Amino acid sequence: MTPLGDSFHVFDTTLRDGAQREGISYSVNDKLAVARLLDSLGVGFIEGGWPGAMPKDTEFFARAAAGELTLKHAQLVAFGSTRKAGVKVEEDAQVRALLEARTPVVTLVAKSDRRHIEKALRTDVAENCAMVRDTVAFLVNEGRRVFLDAEHFFDGFAHDPDTSLRVLESAVEGGADVVVLCDTNGGQLPLGLAETVADVVARTGFRVGIHCQDDTSCAVANTIAAVQAGATHVQCTANGYGERAGNADLFAVVGNLVTKLGLQVLPHESLAELTRVSHALAEIANIAPDTHQAYVGSSAFAHKAGLHASAIKVDPELYNHIDPDTVGNDMRVLVTEMAGRASLELKGREFGIDLTRRPDALTNVVRKVKELEAGGWSFEAADASLELLLKAEMSDLGAPPFTLESYRVVLDHHQDGSIVSEATVKVHVAGERVIATAEGNGPVHALDAALRKALLPHLSWLDVVELNDYKVRILPGSHNSAEHGTDAVTRVLVESTDGEREWTTVGVHGNIVEASWLALCDALVHKALRVSPSPA
Amino acid sequence: MTPLGDSFHVFDTTLRDGAQREGISYSVNDKLAVARLLDSLGVGFIEGGWPGAMPKDTEFFARAAAGELTLKHAQLVAFGSTRKAGVKVEEDAQVRALLEARTPVVTLVAKSDRRHIEKALRTDVAENCAMVRDTVAFLVNEGRRVFLDAEHFFDGFAHDPDTSLRVLESAVEGGADVVVLCDTNGGQLPLGLAETVADVVARTGFRVGIHCQDDTSCAVANTIAAVQAGATHVQCTANGYGERAGNADLFAVVGNLVTKLGLQVLPHESLAELTRVSHALAEIANIAPDTHQAYVGSSAFAHKAGLHASAIKVDPELYNHIDPDTVGNDMRVLVTEMAGRASLELKGREFGIDLTRRPDALTNVVRKVKELEAGGWSFEAADASLELLLKAEMSDLGAPPFTLESYRVVLDHHQDGSIVSEATVKVHVAGERVIATAEGNGPVHALDAALRKALLPHLSWLDVVELNDYKVRILPGSHNSAEHGTDAVTRVLVESTDGEREWTTVGVHGNIVEASWLALCDALVHKALRVSPSPA
Repeated sequence: MTPLGDSFHVFDTTLRDGAQREGISYSVNDKLAVARLLDSLGVGFIEGGWPGAMPKDTEFFARAAAGELTLKHAQLVAFGSTRKAGVKVEEDAQVRALLEARTPVVTLVAKSDRRHIEKALRTDVAENCAMVRDTVAFLVNEGRRVFLDAEHFFDGFAHDPDTSLRVLESAVEGGADVVVLCDTNGGQLPLGLAETVADVVARTGFRVGIHCQDDTSCAVANTIAAVQAGATHVQCTANGYGERAGNADLFAVVGNLVTKLGLQVLPHESLAELTRVSHALAEIANIAPDTHQAYVGSSAFAHKAGLHASAIKVDPELYNHIDPDTVGNDMRVLVTEMAGRASLELKGREFGIDLTRRPDALTNVVRKVKELEAGGWSFEAADASLELLLKAEMSDLGAPPFTLESYRVVLDHHQDGSIVSEATVKVHVAGERVIATAEGNGPVHALDAALRKALLPHLSWLDVVELNDYKVRILPGSHNSAEHGTDAVTRVLVESTDGEREWTTVGVHGNIVEASWLALCDALVHKALRVSPSPA
Repeated sequence: MTPLGDSFHVFDTTLRDGAQREGISYSVNDKLAVARLLDSLGVGFIEGGWPGAMPKDTEFFARAAAGELTLKHAQLVAFGSTRKAGVKVEEDAQVRALLEARTPVVTLVAKSDRRHIEKALRTDVAENCAMVRDTVAFLVNEGRRVFLDAEHFFDGFAHDPDTSLRVLESAVEGGADVVVLCDTNGGQLPLGLAETVADVVARTGFRVGIHCQDDTSCAVANTIAAVQAGATHVQCTANGYGERAGNADLFAVVGNLVTKLGLQVLPHESLAELTRVSHALAEIANIAPDTHQAYVGSSAFAHKAGLHASAIKVDPELYNHIDPDTVGNDMRVLVTEMAGRASLELKGREFGIDLTRRPDALTNVVRKVKELEAGGWSFEAADASLELLLKAEMSDLGAPPFTLESYRVVLDHHQDGSIVSEATVKVHVAGERVIATAEGNGPVHALDAALRKALLPHLSWLDVVELNDYKVRILPGSHNSAEHGTDAVTRVLVESTDGEREWTTVGVHGNIVEASWLALCDALVHKALRVSPSPA
């Protein structure tokens, strides 16, 4: 529970409206992982999707209800539309699907712009209002808490305020708790929007929420302005994911509400998690984090040397709008080693390595990490590889559990259309030279299979190690006009598990198979560390 | 000249403040190219840099003055600071460098927060004001128009308004034309900022400008709110480039001023150039364009929702905040699992295929797209593959330009650590069977090279086709506990260009190399369509 309790709602719709972003395609497992992260942050409501309309969303709610999703803070919300015109609510299949999602809260979307009612729904205002009232009442009667998303509210209110207000009234008559004013086309600016919100609050006395799209680049500002004008429920998406230009970014909205307006809309301890959760959610969406995102971007507190550099050292508070630690971010002064040393020292402490007593080793590690990062490596999500790097530099690693002599991967697309991937590895393990060949679904799978086949007779602990996840990102690399686009650097992240722990390793190379190989090897070497602190 | 003449200033500082963005490093040639593009758009002022402080900027102004930069619309501006404390203005080297830049306009930056004056400058308010007055007067006397950037104005005004106002007064006493209120740390929100701007305008009667940083994700909104409160000079950077989270994005600010507030701040014909110029400036900065940027992003008018697709067909104006043509952008309807007949029909229209007269074919296409999407395909970013699919279904495709017999890819990691990727393809093209082998940096690169080698003698148009970008996404697929994580479905997106057009194709397969092969082949077949409408 947040300090403000139910009096202020942080309502996340990453899984519904955020999933509308071009390029996002969440699996059901992704959706469960997103919901867990959002819940850990302490948002009040998680809109999980549109059951009945989207098969994946239906499955998500079914698996959540079956016990795969246990929420500490948030309430799960199903999204759907009102009954169709001219249909009895209890006979509307889509409304039934909302019930079957078994969530405590339902958000209903309804048209609140006369032109949309007439042109898109092809019905009249009276029937539209009846659709809203009936559906809300039906769901409330079934024990659901209902919020109304009043679509196209601001455009509609400007065009014909009476119709827009009647839609809100119908929802409240049906028993809706919050009427959410939506800037669906995203054309609003903060001063005008705040006036409208204040006007609606004054005229109706209803509990008002806000939902903004970013088409004027003002979604965050509009959301904040609405709160200042009386809204007590904000709908946002992680990193602003959403259709067209996107939605209001949850992290900037929360950052502003807490640090600028002093509204404690998240549990106290959550604010410092904003940066981590933002990046983790980007990873799941498979979208590179926006380095220049407010509050949580890796550049959000990065100062280029020059005008301010020396003054920043004296008094950083004069040059940052907030203390970056507040949101779990770091200040960086670019083109210096300072930041790198401090964070690697901290990282070392996490791994049980005291780098403060070895300033020479720390200098080497900082240099090495900088070189690797310039070449496309990234250790942000690959602690296990970073730990190996630090330990190697501190001479804390014994002999590796195995060494590679060579490998070969052959891929055949035969004339009959069949495709075969085969890998052969030659490795040295436990004093022996072992050759093993295996097939797989693709080159990396084949290589992984061959390596396991070679090692397993000698390293029995390997049996429990599994690959959980495999991610690939192509980095622009040194692209020049004489080359083609496939000539780039590939970064591979491998997440492994032994049933108890999970760990992530990274590999970077111009060749995707070699990058994968590096990450696969790190994964096994890291496991070996835990089996025997100093494998011989 | 804009319709508003000198009464409203669009002041661009991409080359000075924008260049502070982490990752941007303009050459002098880059700077000249940026200035020409901004001038072609019709901005009123182009701040070119800080002569004397930055060697590249000094050179830029020298080359501009020597005739390399001829501006049609804009005036060139040099940026610099006031004289140092305790130094005579005419003896201050940095002030002299400002004169030597030979620009008609100079922007002087000065501290306007008492704490910065005392802690960072280590002087007192009286001397700080004298520094401002002296330097402005000196430059005005030398025939320059002078604007004052009042740094940290909003934080300073909140802390000690008298000091901040005294700095503004000193500038105007010296002869400054515009006092620019800067939210240097970027912590402002629109409603509060608008109040301060209105207050300053009312108290002083000065001509006020605005300069916002994006640390609360409100830079655009703050800039617009300032204009509504009385500012008549806006400082922006292309695509919001700038230190930390960046500056106010020129394109969103201009888009909002023109289409929302009705201020004709650019020449009439320029608005439709916004999208093109934004992308060109991203190219020069070597930063991938932000696909979700307001107004100019490639997704800014892209609709995914099945919910709206049928209504969009009826009346697109109901679903876009402006007509995308206004800013030189396009509406796109994305095809996804959420979409059905209506969006595929619309998509067909984009490709010049009338599916309305072929309801049977439309049914087949819908079924096929749904099946493919269930298997991990995604056409929302791969219009070119979708076009091929639609045309195949409509029997609009002739014989393919080539067919595959087989391919083989061999990857060797040798004992000496060297890695070689080699591919051999056997294809049939122009009635011949061709075998070609090539090496590459990785398996896909090698395969691409071998395919081109085989086809080029027969398909000369292939010569201009290049791969621009290559993206890989691993999808969870049918992951069950008996299998390892590398056993998943891989989706590859390939963006190609022929120097005039860009198009994107998709391939999905359990094997990453085969997925890439499918996308590569689609890319070439799609190009063939354009070379000859019905390749034989």
